[in-house]
Amino acid sequence: MIQHTVCFTLVHPAGSDAETDFLRTAAAVLPGVPGVDAFRIARQVGSQSELQWQFSMDFPDRATYAAYDAHPDHRRFVESRWVSDVQAFTEFDFEPYTPRA
Amino acid sequence: MIQHTVCFTLVHPAGSDAETDFLRTAAAVLPGVPGVDAFRIARQVGSQSELQWQFSMDFPDRATYAAYDAHPDHRRFVESRWVSDVQAFTEFDFEPYTPRA
Repeated sequence: MIQHTVCFTLVHPAGSDAETDFLRTAAAVLPGVPGVDAFRIARQVGSQSELQWQFSMDFPDRATYAAYDAHPDHRRFVESRWVSDVQAFTEFDFEPYTPRA
Repeated sequence: MIQHTVCFTLVHPAGSDAETDFLRTAAAVLPGVPGVDAFRIARQVGSQSELQWQFSMDFPDRATYAAYDAHPDHRRFVESRWVSDVQAFTEFDFEPYTPRA
């Protein structure tokens, strides 16, 4: 399992209709891309980062993650909304780890 | 619910016994602090950040999170291990969000 996350800040004012529209569009499009599991949106509320939002999704393996990245619905969302609406972002991808005994 | 996360890089070489010891100690101590739910360790595998690890835990509310932060077992871990073993880190805290319809 691989968890793909991106923390980001929008160009839109907090609480604006444009902000809601961006998040709603993401919630309508991204979970429908094949292979995406457990898509969720979170508000970043920690004081140590200025990034305001997070998208998170799980993939069973890296091949499925790569297929998502290349999928036309994802590419279209990136080109039509992400590039114009997002001011700053940082991506993190996680794989579960259990320390050896 | 609030998810507290910290992404970090250790001073220890990847795959070293010191690395494993740090992660094992965290896994032994932190989930036992009252209020900590779903403690997990993940390897950060994305190429867009140099941070190598993540701790994540859930709290039912901010008061419980604050109590964890102040708890002697957590403070002791920070003072005895975190300060010496961690080279760089970034914290993010998340609250679930559902866009309004």
